[in-house]
Amino acid sequence: MLEVNRERMHEKLSAFSKFGALEGGGITRLSLSEPALAARAEFKERVESLGMILESDDIGNLYATWPGTVEGLPRIVMGSHIDSVRNGGNYDGVYGVLASLEVAETVITEGIKLRHPITVMIWTNEEGARFEPAMMSSGIVMKKFAKEAMLAVVETGGTVTFGEALEASGWIGDEANRLNDRDYCAYFEPHIEQGPVLEEEGLDIGVVAGVVGMVNYDIILEGVSSHAGTTPQSYRKDALRAASKVVMDLWDKLGALADDLVFTMGEITCRPNIHTVVPNYVKFSLDARHQDMNIVGKVVDVVKALPSEVYGCKLSYEEHWGRKTIQFDERLLGYLETTTKGLGYSCKRMYSGAGHDAQYVSELLPSAMIFIPSKDGLSHTVVEYSSPEQAWRGANVLLNALVEADQSF
Amino acid sequence: MLEVNRERMHEKLSAFSKFGALEGGGITRLSLSEPALAARAEFKERVESLGMILESDDIGNLYATWPGTVEGLPRIVMGSHIDSVRNGGNYDGVYGVLASLEVAETVITEGIKLRHPITVMIWTNEEGARFEPAMMSSGIVMKKFAKEAMLAVVETGGTVTFGEALEASGWIGDEANRLNDRDYCAYFEPHIEQGPVLEEEGLDIGVVAGVVGMVNYDIILEGVSSHAGTTPQSYRKDALRAASKVVMDLWDKLGALADDLVFTMGEITCRPNIHTVVPNYVKFSLDARHQDMNIVGKVVDVVKALPSEVYGCKLSYEEHWGRKTIQFDERLLGYLETTTKGLGYSCKRMYSGAGHDAQYVSELLPSAMIFIPSKDGLSHTVVEYSSPEQAWRGANVLLNALVEADQSF
Repeated sequence: MLEVNRERMHEKLSAFSKFGALEGGGITRLSLSEPALAARAEFKERVESLGMILESDDIGNLYATWPGTVEGLPRIVMGSHIDSVRNGGNYDGVYGVLASLEVAETVITEGIKLRHPITVMIWTNEEGARFEPAMMSSGIVMKKFAKEAMLAVVETGGTVTFGEALEASGWIGDEANRLNDRDYCAYFEPHIEQGPVLEEEGLDIGVVAGVVGMVNYDIILEGVSSHAGTTPQSYRKDALRAASKVVMDLWDKLGALADDLVFTMGEITCRPNIHTVVPNYVKFSLDARHQDMNIVGKVVDVVKALPSEVYGCKLSYEEHWGRKTIQFDERLLGYLETTTKGLGYSCKRMYSGAGHDAQYVSELLPSAMIFIPSKDGLSHTVVEYSSPEQAWRGANVLLNALVEADQSF
Repeated sequence: MLEVNRERMHEKLSAFSKFGALEGGGITRLSLSEPALAARAEFKERVESLGMILESDDIGNLYATWPGTVEGLPRIVMGSHIDSVRNGGNYDGVYGVLASLEVAETVITEGIKLRHPITVMIWTNEEGARFEPAMMSSGIVMKKFAKEAMLAVVETGGTVTFGEALEASGWIGDEANRLNDRDYCAYFEPHIEQGPVLEEEGLDIGVVAGVVGMVNYDIILEGVSSHAGTTPQSYRKDALRAASKVVMDLWDKLGALADDLVFTMGEITCRPNIHTVVPNYVKFSLDARHQDMNIVGKVVDVVKALPSEVYGCKLSYEEHWGRKTIQFDERLLGYLETTTKGLGYSCKRMYSGAGHDAQYVSELLPSAMIFIPSKDGLSHTVVEYSSPEQAWRGANVLLNALVEADQSF
């Protein structure tokens, strides 16, 4: 089996950790910010010094390509994103780009002959931390979002639009360069797991079979605000009490649906939120995800069956966006499993609970993802960590699966 | 029994409702703001046209005095405050000042002979809505707060200090004019109930026997923040789940202590408060009040007995300020009950769940409060309402109790 260069893989991660580095570790590298542009410049220098051709499309997505041996075959593409959340880590996103780059560097410097051209990609603004929503560029390419509307999005906490930031970046290229199903034939995205499962189970690799379906709700309790000192308990319509009851009930009811259902009440708003006033309004979010859409449907049933009144407070809910479960390409998954085993690594098939550009790309091209373990399951934090060994193994799996795909596609 | 002038009482409430009036009703009349100073100017004009002597002390408290018939007797004082919260109503505070003023006007214009001088008072900054804390000036007079520290308090959401606002008001007088136990012998404070009890029980008057004791806590749950999509439920340490459990448990345990214990969890902070992230930190407030300090002590026991860990989250708590139950003067309470009955009104003894300047004054002078009903128990809102009849009855009780006290003190 082939292997990438372990030290070189590690050097790449170290080198890119400088861009947006925070004192004490981690990075803030918001999309199209100065550190993100510095990271793009470094990427450009590295791919061009390898002799790859770098192109960008009209929304600043980057494509660095190395030719194949057979004229006219479509490209196999691999990559991820280099933007981070605020106070993020050195692995989420950038690992996928650098593992792909290291695979390309190995192919080029070792003279590995591939029939197809290979492309290393950087997606613009995956996190959505500066410009909402997340996965903006893959969403534009896949017509999930209207480009004009996205260009007009103003940065969170600032005044610059996505369109202005893109213009200023100097990375606007030709729309014809966008990822498409004529010039490309398969997509791989390596990524950190962002969860604890691989580490807990002592596994090297997650072969990601898809992205789980999900639903999102806001659940709202409306009571009556009154004075904390003068309103007897029996007269109260306390929205926070009611919300607490509903949170507990949802844990019971949703917890019984399936062991591997994940659900989260992560955001809560309380009004007037004064310690001497009984709350009259509480809204909290519910996010639930599972690979089996029947289970997701049962979550919807639980929400619909919530009582209309709790402790005298009116209960209502608003459904926000959801998504169906995305299934990745069975052939690519097979190559990932075969090569993982060939390399002597342990792995399991798993679903990604988080969204990734791959979920949109999968509607265009055969796609698959590779997960490497995340220490303590943590991501979107400065302490995000995967070991050099883990990072190297993920790239080795990608390299060998790429060779497999190159033979068959 | 004596009666104040019903139309005049109503006119006073209507006239003062102009100062800080909001479109659609209610007022915002923050302490020492322009509308509050306009209300003071109106008060000055009215008391001086009645022939009363208006004085102010060094923190802008106003004292309008009418002489008694016996030389050298101390004054009986009655009053409240004219400042409001943001988006407050036309009764909280100002009713007490205007009922007192109407009583004085009745005494003066009807030629009612009282042995003691009588004083109508306005306390500066009772609400604490502009300058924290509440009951600032009575607290300074009673040495609860250091004057220098209070003068340095910066307005909420602005840059002006209490000292600067006081200076600009033109109302700084002599420290010797402060309420004291040589020149004054008793204090009455009429106020709206701010709770639903009188209305629900169909009563005219609350004879306020004291201010309930209270304790305040912040209860903190610390878990681990992780990704909503990638962290199996069994791995989670979800601080919002844990907080919801503790809120429910506190309702059960505190609710069993006494029927008339009031307790409120009114404020909640959740971090990071993002719908796709498991909360790692939730803090919520607990405010509990009861007239029996043994019951308050049992609340403390319940808090101390909370488990140190809930659903894998560390539980801790911080005790904030509390107060012991304040008992008002038994003689004054007797006059209030006698005169209420003499007027043919229904009443009950009750405790104030809210704090009032009277609670500090009660350490200096025999003090008592009179409550009139609040529609729907509401206060600190633009829809705060007591009927002209209710307002008039409260002033009648004050007038007759004043006459009783005048005979005995």
